[in-house]
Amino acid sequence: MKKLLPIVALFAIAFGAQAQELSNFQRGPRPVISPEIQGDSVTFRLKADYATVVKLSGSWMPNPYGGTIDMTRGEGNVWSVKIPLPSPEIYTYNFVVDGVAVNDPQNVLVQRDGTRYLPMLIVPGERTENYGEAKTHGTVSHPWYDSKILGYSRRLSVYTPYGYENSPKKKYPVLYLLHGAGGDEEAWISMGRAAQILDNLIEKGLAEPMIVVMPNGNPGQQAARTLNIPETQINWRSEEFRDAYVRSLCTEIVPFIEKNFRAVPKPSSRAIAGLSMGGGHTISASNLYPEMFDYICPLSAAGSATPEQVSALKNAGVKLYFLACGNSDFLFQRSEEMDKKLTEAGLDHTYFVSEGGHTWANWRLYLNTFAPLLFK
Amino acid sequence: MKKLLPIVALFAIAFGAQAQELSNFQRGPRPVISPEIQGDSVTFRLKADYATVVKLSGSWMPNPYGGTIDMTRGEGNVWSVKIPLPSPEIYTYNFVVDGVAVNDPQNVLVQRDGTRYLPMLIVPGERTENYGEAKTHGTVSHPWYDSKILGYSRRLSVYTPYGYENSPKKKYPVLYLLHGAGGDEEAWISMGRAAQILDNLIEKGLAEPMIVVMPNGNPGQQAARTLNIPETQINWRSEEFRDAYVRSLCTEIVPFIEKNFRAVPKPSSRAIAGLSMGGGHTISASNLYPEMFDYICPLSAAGSATPEQVSALKNAGVKLYFLACGNSDFLFQRSEEMDKKLTEAGLDHTYFVSEGGHTWANWRLYLNTFAPLLFK
Repeated sequence: MKKLLPIVALFAIAFGAQAQELSNFQRGPRPVISPEIQGDSVTFRLKADYATVVKLSGSWMPNPYGGTIDMTRGEGNVWSVKIPLPSPEIYTYNFVVDGVAVNDPQNVLVQRDGTRYLPMLIVPGERTENYGEAKTHGTVSHPWYDSKILGYSRRLSVYTPYGYENSPKKKYPVLYLLHGAGGDEEAWISMGRAAQILDNLIEKGLAEPMIVVMPNGNPGQQAARTLNIPETQINWRSEEFRDAYVRSLCTEIVPFIEKNFRAVPKPSSRAIAGLSMGGGHTISASNLYPEMFDYICPLSAAGSATPEQVSALKNAGVKLYFLACGNSDFLFQRSEEMDKKLTEAGLDHTYFVSEGGHTWANWRLYLNTFAPLLFK
Repeated sequence: MKKLLPIVALFAIAFGAQAQELSNFQRGPRPVISPEIQGDSVTFRLKADYATVVKLSGSWMPNPYGGTIDMTRGEGNVWSVKIPLPSPEIYTYNFVVDGVAVNDPQNVLVQRDGTRYLPMLIVPGERTENYGEAKTHGTVSHPWYDSKILGYSRRLSVYTPYGYENSPKKKYPVLYLLHGAGGDEEAWISMGRAAQILDNLIEKGLAEPMIVVMPNGNPGQQAARTLNIPETQINWRSEEFRDAYVRSLCTEIVPFIEKNFRAVPKPSSRAIAGLSMGGGHTISASNLYPEMFDYICPLSAAGSATPEQVSALKNAGVKLYFLACGNSDFLFQRSEEMDKKLTEAGLDHTYFVSEGGHTWANWRLYLNTFAPLLFK
């Protein structure tokens, strides 16, 4: 084990690390710890030898777009700030060193949002108790399905619950869980903590063991962290590609999952949920294929349905319609209209209105709230 | 699709993005493109409104530890530098803004090395032709196995080749592929491009379709991006935990894989390879369990074997012993000694010496070189 340090140092050199990044690996008498939660406060620290001004920016601040707190230079050029602990939730934060956003090199908990990697602060409490690691873990896999509709193979994220491997005869219901604009097939895993939420809910007996399928909802993208297919090659706005992704979801992904996983191939064992653009996809899927899913959950949704489309759902015998939105979401009015339409058509449904806006804090809350209602 | 932009902008605000990060999403008349390869040059660009000095640091530079090139401020505060294209390889790089390392917000290709997320530059050429996306893709999954030896459940990365799902009766050989100090079960996937290399080699018919298992080699760590089990709780250096990870690998992970995947459970269908510390694990595994693996590949390895241990391997009928190291690696002398021991014991082996040192450039090259030799 004594060999560990020189090897790691050489790695860092080989990869072009900057001097300040080596602080990751330094084992001095006073290692930099960040973030450090103590009682009802949290301290952030960053070693920055040459900085003039270091600030902290966090998603809990009233105006995170530019909202910052000054940090103070201390011994060994470790800058720090101690603040009252925000209320229980998962927040993201970064340092701002001489005007430039910098991640916390001490924090292994990182979300990915497109090309941005954001350190997380998980504040413990009732709200977040299902967001940390459970004792038991499902398996997350990334199979690729061939899409004839979109013209190439595409990557999925698939969660199978703890016990799936050890129960080779058991079949499971499936939740199709869709991301929003700017996201990809890893968004619910990374920002949504979907695996942790399902692990915890299933371990506690609160949710049915289920498969969760998280596709990539961008028709021009094969997979997370790959370039989009250039629009010069394919015009996704043309009539040929109208609803192309939703058609691929319902006529290619659903059959792929029901062939390659031990899924119950029935409407009563299929749920669909999605946020924002994915809420729009959820509504489109239920409009186009009203008999496919018995559980429908549009979250902070961009999308709408005609009275005829809602009637078709009612006739199909939908078991749960869970509509959710934050009361300061810019799409709140759309959810209000959807609630009205569902009421007018006499479709029994749940309308879940939470505080706040168009945020992952709300989408995690919604998943944690509706997953226990599925397949029961 | 017109709705995409405002939604994305709101996302960014909700997550506490800094002003400069919004440049990700801006679709002005002159979007920032970085890196941009044109002929035999490559241009890097970064929009940084308030910076005084912006530099580029890359792993191709003679002295990446501090080696930088100045960038020049241009129109709209876009800093840029155009340099001759380095020779074909995967490099990492970052910007240095007023002394602080910053990632390229325009580049979706990112490696993770511990808490560091490093943008990649993939220079096309013969050397890298198997490092990009193939037409066909295997599935990467992350099951967890219960370790009685280490006392908790632990996450694996498992690659199954293209066609695995569609050939439900076919069984496959398995390569156990181990990372080095500072790595985890995602290191070969992220930095090693293992999935891409196997996809390409199998697609071209150069390698046998195989399962590749990448465990986490840190006995105190459950999974990538989680905190280590504190040393105050478990003394990994005690006699009880001597070779604990290698024992867990051979007596827990191998049976787990052969139970839960369609693996051929025979020495002639098992290979083990590892880099640096993982090369040490490879040698330890072959010392402790000489009859388990017919294919043994220590890469830039920290580890050694006694003449008796080498003889035991020879008697077990090892089919391939592939020893590899860079000629300027700080562990090169150890590989030379190992080569000598193998020769003295009369164990037929391949000794592959490459240019360079203890780098992922070499480990990708080794995987691309030995994978076609396995299971034939």
